Amino acid sequence: MPRLCIRPEERTLDVSAGQTIFEACWGAGVYIQSSCGGLGACNKCVVRILEGDAPLSALDRKHLSSAELAQGYRHSCALRLDRNTVVEIPQAARRYGERILTDGRAQSSLSGQALVRQYHCRLEPPSKDNGLGDFERLKRGLKSAGRGLQADLPTLQALPITLRSSGFEVTATCAGPDLLAVEAGDVCGTAYGMAFDIGTTTVVGYLVELSHGRTLAVASRPNSQAALGQDVITRAQYASKSESSRDELRSLIVQCLQAIALDCAAQAGVSLARCFDAVVSGNTIMLHLLLGVNPHPITVFPFAPAWTGARAFKAAELGLSFHPQARLYLLPCVAGYVGGDITAGLLATGLCEREELTLLVDVGTNGEVVLGNRDGWLACAAPAGPAFEGARISCGMMAMSGAIDRVTWSVGSADLEFHVLDNAAPRGVCGTGLIDCVAAFLETGMIDTSGRIVRSEEAQARLAGPLARRIQHDQHGGRVVLVEAARTHEGRKDLCLTQRDIRELQLAKGAVRAAVDMALLVRGVQPHEVRSVLIAGGFGSFIRPVSARTIGLFPEAFDMSRLEAVGNTAGLGARLCLSHLEARARAESWARRTAYVELSAQPNFMEVFADAMAFPEPK
Amino acid sequence: MPRLCIRPEERTLDVSAGQTIFEACWGAGVYIQSSCGGLGACNKCVVRILEGDAPLSALDRKHLSSAELAQGYRHSCALRLDRNTVVEIPQAARRYGERILTDGRAQSSLSGQALVRQYHCRLEPPSKDNGLGDFERLKRGLKSAGRGLQADLPTLQALPITLRSSGFEVTATCAGPDLLAVEAGDVCGTAYGMAFDIGTTTVVGYLVELSHGRTLAVASRPNSQAALGQDVITRAQYASKSESSRDELRSLIVQCLQAIALDCAAQAGVSLARCFDAVVSGNTIMLHLLLGVNPHPITVFPFAPAWTGARAFKAAELGLSFHPQARLYLLPCVAGYVGGDITAGLLATGLCEREELTLLVDVGTNGEVVLGNRDGWLACAAPAGPAFEGARISCGMMAMSGAIDRVTWSVGSADLEFHVLDNAAPRGVCGTGLIDCVAAFLETGMIDTSGRIVRSEEAQARLAGPLARRIQHDQHGGRVVLVEAARTHEGRKDLCLTQRDIRELQLAKGAVRAAVDMALLVRGVQPHEVRSVLIAGGFGSFIRPVSARTIGLFPEAFDMSRLEAVGNTAGLGARLCLSHLEARARAESWARRTAYVELSAQPNFMEVFADAMAFPEPK
Repeated sequence: MPRLCIRPEERTLDVSAGQTIFEACWGAGVYIQSSCGGLGACNKCVVRILEGDAPLSALDRKHLSSAELAQGYRHSCALRLDRNTVVEIPQAARRYGERILTDGRAQSSLSGQALVRQYHCRLEPPSKDNGLGDFERLKRGLKSAGRGLQADLPTLQALPITLRSSGFEVTATCAGPDLLAVEAGDVCGTAYGMAFDIGTTTVVGYLVELSHGRTLAVASRPNSQAALGQDVITRAQYASKSESSRDELRSLIVQCLQAIALDCAAQAGVSLARCFDAVVSGNTIMLHLLLGVNPHPITVFPFAPAWTGARAFKAAELGLSFHPQARLYLLPCVAGYVGGDITAGLLATGLCEREELTLLVDVGTNGEVVLGNRDGWLACAAPAGPAFEGARISCGMMAMSGAIDRVTWSVGSADLEFHVLDNAAPRGVCGTGLIDCVAAFLETGMIDTSGRIVRSEEAQARLAGPLARRIQHDQHGGRVVLVEAARTHEGRKDLCLTQRDIRELQLAKGAVRAAVDMALLVRGVQPHEVRSVLIAGGFGSFIRPVSARTIGLFPEAFDMSRLEAVGNTAGLGARLCLSHLEARARAESWARRTAYVELSAQPNFMEVFADAMAFPEPK
Repeated sequence: MPRLCIRPEERTLDVSAGQTIFEACWGAGVYIQSSCGGLGACNKCVVRILEGDAPLSALDRKHLSSAELAQGYRHSCALRLDRNTVVEIPQAARRYGERILTDGRAQSSLSGQALVRQYHCRLEPPSKDNGLGDFERLKRGLKSAGRGLQADLPTLQALPITLRSSGFEVTATCAGPDLLAVEAGDVCGTAYGMAFDIGTTTVVGYLVELSHGRTLAVASRPNSQAALGQDVITRAQYASKSESSRDELRSLIVQCLQAIALDCAAQAGVSLARCFDAVVSGNTIMLHLLLGVNPHPITVFPFAPAWTGARAFKAAELGLSFHPQARLYLLPCVAGYVGGDITAGLLATGLCEREELTLLVDVGTNGEVVLGNRDGWLACAAPAGPAFEGARISCGMMAMSGAIDRVTWSVGSADLEFHVLDNAAPRGVCGTGLIDCVAAFLETGMIDTSGRIVRSEEAQARLAGPLARRIQHDQHGGRVVLVEAARTHEGRKDLCLTQRDIRELQLAKGAVRAAVDMALLVRGVQPHEVRSVLIAGGFGSFIRPVSARTIGLFPEAFDMSRLEAVGNTAGLGARLCLSHLEARARAESWARRTAYVELSAQPNFMEVFADAMAFPEPK
């Protein structure tokens, strides 16, 4: 069995012969940058081999310079391990420290208590005049909370002993009518829950103390399923292969949730054995994968999921190691492409209770749109692709150190100005930087409204010198140089956006815009009637409204001052369900009442989509 | 590892060194006669060693003749296996072919359906206009039965595949709102359930087709826990030792239930994978042992059980291999000594709905009494001991081949007449035979009303010659010879009832009678007001009313023509709960409304008990 040593941390793994470095590292929780998930398509998982065999792959030959090859750089997804190997994975090539949005502001008013509650009670001991069974004695001690109480086998087995050793003074922990645990003395306030937001790329978890609903810890990890498919569709395709592939995906995400829960528990200094409840939000396919249910029908017409309503299980049934009796709740979905994350968004924003017409847009690998108010709301989804998250973009990257996240140009300026996260040497462009870039290209005239990079001669004729010099054309097509090789982090080649990158963004923005336009059309309202635009998700929190408008992500008539980033509403909605039982009933009712619009079935959708692809005329 | 060969069937077992023959045989399902459960107290488990070491135990020396020892007879509970051994266990020394009561007549009117029901439905396939989730599609197809439907993980995982492979025509099997299975096509009428009556000595199981409530098969086995304690108290004491002793008892009874279910399934030609539900009745301690709950508090004042209400689990939680989603229901108990078997009896007899004042008596190792009618009823229990089942009686045995089961004497006859089951050579006396004997002894004057065997001279003076010759006295006390050695099955010694045997019966009948008297006293009614006397249990079906009256089991004022044997009401009640959901609600309500009278807490109980011990004057 070959060993892999990872530097700089000098961590050594035993790996299976024939595994790629990429697989071995992801398997061990060392997440190498990638947007194709190790399929040899994204050209981002280059690492440096310090010791051991490093045969060249076709990918290496095609994408790396001879100097890079000589220094030991290789694509980690193409190098299979046969002997002991030492590899360097610089921090910058890892998916650590992403700018992950874990917060969200609750805009819906919820009161009431959590599903899991603790009751301290002093019971009358058995006597000649009180021969009640222990369980009935506890029920009586719990008063109204004891009505219809049910106990699982282990709880019942422990009951006689606990009651007698505690002198009949105990704390009962209940999930509705289910008795989860009985403990000696007063331990109220020590029941915890985990809320999870399973994103296709990133999973965030929150540890919540249940009696007050306080969040005590937050942790996130890349979704470790990404190694088997970067986006929902490739992952669903992998899952549809066999039961064992579904098992594999299920076990990856379960391990990921468990690891996040452990991170949180360590932060907060509590034991996961005291975690009695969990709530999970995520898109419909992520939830199918969590349950090991074949999501294939979602990927083909008519896109039917295996279920849409809320689902409840024991956490242990899914393989999570919390309290043995811990519960688990999955937020309800609306349709195959409007999932529990959006229902969580409805909860977090209170859209369904608002008077004013509100648009909620969640821009991730899919763009989901909900439009409405308390009188009714509709939802639709458009496959935006991963461009907004920096994937499928040649120099795209997550929003982390070294990412160009902001680009500015003022009319009359000679050149663009770049802002890099952490003021580091630039390594790539994240989603918001990408939108800023394209907005600036449009404003400067470096691209036209069809998205085409202007020809070099045209650029030299019409643009300021520094701008014109950024435009290059070769046999692969046009590109815009953002940063020259010498000034980049790796110093190896120019940081560019290619014509194809711009097309990717165009497709993504076109999809979201088309969904917004279709929602307005179906609802029969004009853009100016929308009073509030809420952008959910990490991306939405960082997008610059002016750039969003410049590229035409939203109709021009939208009042951009009403645009509001509402943060990670998927995580917030899950936390609300954890701390307020009432939130679940609300989510279930709202999900059921959502009018889902299947865009592909709308007769005029292709027309709307084609219009939405074009960029608006710059002002 | 020594090997044990059992003859005549030539079955060979590998046994652990140091195990007794008794333990090894019971462990392998070869049930040697015993009433102490291998504790060296009952002197009934004698077997014959044909090959191998056969060292003499103290028990052997004390109880066996030198001729018996020379022939290789040994107490199987005292002989530990160290080498390969061949043992002969004659059929007569086994607990096969007992006269077990499996039937009972339902006297309560129940209609309505089982918990588990099957629904055949043709679902609309997904389409552009119907994008429901599979689960929601099924819910809609089930109409009102789909309301609040919940699916377990495996059912949900299988759903997309089953719906599509069946062309969306399926049968759903539900337990209330829980979806247990979805199968292609129409398979209605193929859901089965098992009803169990766990007796301390014998376990009976019934396989029931759930849609019509028909019983398709019946099977019974000795309660295999008996090897670890013959009566409830010694078994409860064993269970209170440690968690592992509880586990041991639990696993014995679970294996026993599974074996009975397999017997039934084989008889009916159905697979246990189609068994979706199970109902269990039994006394409170048996139910505690089934769940692995420590019953110790039931055995000490104030006799508090761990629970009394009905309990529901998944059968798999208890380790039963039925359908993976099969349910299991435990009938509610009333108190530590009035268990689910009595609640089942209330269901089966409809006592709580009757107009006339009714007495239900269940005579087993405990004597339970319920007295009342639809206006109210009370229950109490008296520890009768196992005498009625032939245990602790020197020549006592189960009601099986070779047992004296009926004894008659008419005034003026010179001698007693004996009836032996199967007209075999007599081997012992079963419970009903014992009562007949004692009744005859009373009528002939061989014993007086205090239970004392008359002195020999007194017998010779007052009794007919054959009767007088039956009475013998030696240094151990008096005894009555029933059958001379030469005419017994083994031909080794006289079949006798000793003074101590008569005392055992007297204690047992005294306990039951005291419970009856106390019930009348607490209810404030006179014996003649009782309109109906129902005797439940195997014993009750075979008892001769005239003998019961002669020994004073019931008050003299009882109208013996109203005495009715109602059979195995514990099994019948369990079957009613299996086929009628309504029966469960009824059992729960009736159990709750039962006024339990703790006899030991009644100030005048000892007085009543002392009176109850005496035999009435013969007529």
